[in-house]
Amino acid sequence: MAVIGTGLIGTSVALTAAEEGVSVYLSDRSRAAARTAAALGAGRAEDPPEPVDLAVLAVPPSRIAEVLIAAQERGLARAYTDVASVKERPERAVLARAPEPSRYIGGHPLAGRERSGPLAARAGLFRGRPWALTPHRLTSRAALDRGLELAELCGAAPVVMRSREHDEVVALTSHVPHLLASVMAARLRDGPAGVPLLAGQGLRDVTRIAAGDPRLWSDILRSNAAAMAGVVTELRADLARVAAALAALAEDQDASHEAGHDQGVRTLEDLLARGAAGLAGLPRRPGVGPPAPQAALRILVPDRPGELARLLAAVAALGIAADDVTVEPAQPAQPAQTAQTAQTAGTAETVEPAEAAEDSGLQVRVPVPATDAERIGAKLGADGWERAAAESVPAR
Amino acid sequence: MAVIGTGLIGTSVALTAAEEGVSVYLSDRSRAAARTAAALGAGRAEDPPEPVDLAVLAVPPSRIAEVLIAAQERGLARAYTDVASVKERPERAVLARAPEPSRYIGGHPLAGRERSGPLAARAGLFRGRPWALTPHRLTSRAALDRGLELAELCGAAPVVMRSREHDEVVALTSHVPHLLASVMAARLRDGPAGVPLLAGQGLRDVTRIAAGDPRLWSDILRSNAAAMAGVVTELRADLARVAAALAALAEDQDASHEAGHDQGVRTLEDLLARGAAGLAGLPRRPGVGPPAPQAALRILVPDRPGELARLLAAVAALGIAADDVTVEPAQPAQPAQTAQTAQTAGTAETVEPAEAAEDSGLQVRVPVPATDAERIGAKLGADGWERAAAESVPAR
Repeated sequence: MAVIGTGLIGTSVALTAAEEGVSVYLSDRSRAAARTAAALGAGRAEDPPEPVDLAVLAVPPSRIAEVLIAAQERGLARAYTDVASVKERPERAVLARAPEPSRYIGGHPLAGRERSGPLAARAGLFRGRPWALTPHRLTSRAALDRGLELAELCGAAPVVMRSREHDEVVALTSHVPHLLASVMAARLRDGPAGVPLLAGQGLRDVTRIAAGDPRLWSDILRSNAAAMAGVVTELRADLARVAAALAALAEDQDASHEAGHDQGVRTLEDLLARGAAGLAGLPRRPGVGPPAPQAALRILVPDRPGELARLLAAVAALGIAADDVTVEPAQPAQPAQTAQTAQTAGTAETVEPAEAAEDSGLQVRVPVPATDAERIGAKLGADGWERAAAESVPAR
Repeated sequence: MAVIGTGLIGTSVALTAAEEGVSVYLSDRSRAAARTAAALGAGRAEDPPEPVDLAVLAVPPSRIAEVLIAAQERGLARAYTDVASVKERPERAVLARAPEPSRYIGGHPLAGRERSGPLAARAGLFRGRPWALTPHRLTSRAALDRGLELAELCGAAPVVMRSREHDEVVALTSHVPHLLASVMAARLRDGPAGVPLLAGQGLRDVTRIAAGDPRLWSDILRSNAAAMAGVVTELRADLARVAAALAALAEDQDASHEAGHDQGVRTLEDLLARGAAGLAGLPRRPGVGPPAPQAALRILVPDRPGELARLLAAVAALGIAADDVTVEPAQPAQPAQTAQTAQTAGTAETVEPAEAAEDSGLQVRVPVPATDAERIGAKLGADGWERAAAESVPAR
């Protein structure tokens, strides 16, 4: 394999391939970067003695076509792919100008770090991540196979799609988020003196990707400008509505009965709810594949301090994520108050008088993989936990 | 201590205090939420038999004044604080209407999770985080002391500031970032079918906080609308420039020599650079305090595959973060090519012919705490690593 461009992604591909026993030949416009990658164990910083099976072009989107043309003219490899996060413009340039476009398949591993350069590289960076492959109308079967093999070698999940579809998706999932992170981070420079004192994890998360290399990202964003423009137009419309709402709400609280105030509250609530709904459509973790079928165990917890914490620890010790555990009062004969209600209502003070007697403790719902439900239920039972009348209930 | 409102923050405060041996009395408008917090070990879901030292109001910003008034009318506590992320409006309402405003000090621990409700609570949630305290003109010395004690009990770093200053800072560091996360996440609902397949870590980070409870966040955002409005105006101006740049760049690449194209590239590059600069002004980790003085060791690494990885492992084993390590060719007699150049240039292919002979290996710069430089240098030397001519150089 040849890797052209030993930045973060190229060096990570090379390190992973070298660990798997592949002979890797490294090159970079900066000889120091190629030598650094070699000294990390990513391969040899020299030209291959004969054509390789696959050349990976790890250069910015605007440079893919010219680098491919130069490599094909010297017969570097039998197949070529790249790792850039924009696919349609490079593909169009390859189809128009490359000597052997059939030997090229676009590629894009969905992994990265906010640091750049070979020293930030890691073998295993792509494990479990999606790896988009975008064959065009002339891509040969052999080139597609080399692309699939590379994704699998890196432990990634190949996702085959058209270049235009890819670019529309990543405009939404990567490029516009990067833009927003930068717009937000840019505002911090001129903020009040207390900003560094009160910067929390939320701000760090929202802005983290803005630390990426500005030159590389400028190349990426301008190469996908058309797909981004549509998303940015929609964002600006949302922000215009929010700005109007904030202006109405910024009036003194005494005006809280005016129509503009109510409309402002509704605008904010609508946006926040749409945001939460948008997140709910994403898979829990990066990667592909549907979640395993779930069942639910219902456990009765005595209403004594610490008992619920003891159950959560027992559940965690069985390898079950406690994130989805919910609580409801144990009143089997009554319409259940859902635990979701109990959770989100936990923000105010007055006791609801209508609530039922509480001697029977709390009923805790523990979602578990359906295939493990019996085993986990038996284990909790053996540890002295009492199952509620409703036995393992299929969920979803 | 009394905790009113057993959501995420209230229950986390109560759990932490209970672990430290404080008697905690819990209440919540939802009796189920209070019982859940009690079953977690956060205290007793009952009223205190006599006035407590401190009542913590863990309710949304718009409800602080009314909850405080009700609590003071029944003589619940000798001092009161809250944990809301907006401080000026509640303070104004307290000064206007509460029976004993001198017993109240505003508070805001800078910690949270995207999940809400008592089950998401954790003892230790505030450890090492900033905890803003906003005494007003009538706040008594005793109330200030109770606020300081609570922050310290939770392992947080108290930051005393005026309520208005606090609100301007958090508009920038928390509330507008939340808005942007929601605006971005809202767009995912209507995106193309491939969005869940290609959603990576960057998108997850940018949008994570949008999963917060929409009702609570609507209350927070409208309570700080005035400070947010100014930041949003600036963001919209930046986005308008970006939209114009994207429109110019969305034209076909053949038009890449036109003035609009060049202006578009400059606009993107300027924004990305400003974003990176904004991030650079934040401390590395949440919390307060300047970084320790740094020195740098320079180590010569033989130009053989894997040697650099071996050094990075040795450095990591000494507890030094490898993030800031940089590489430059070992050419002491020549103008040094900085490692920064080597890092960021690692994205293209042609070998620079002007580069010097490479027999002397790579020179690696390892930033270390100044106080540990001698010890770490000696340890690396004992392990066979060669120090470069330039000995430990103070950096910054």
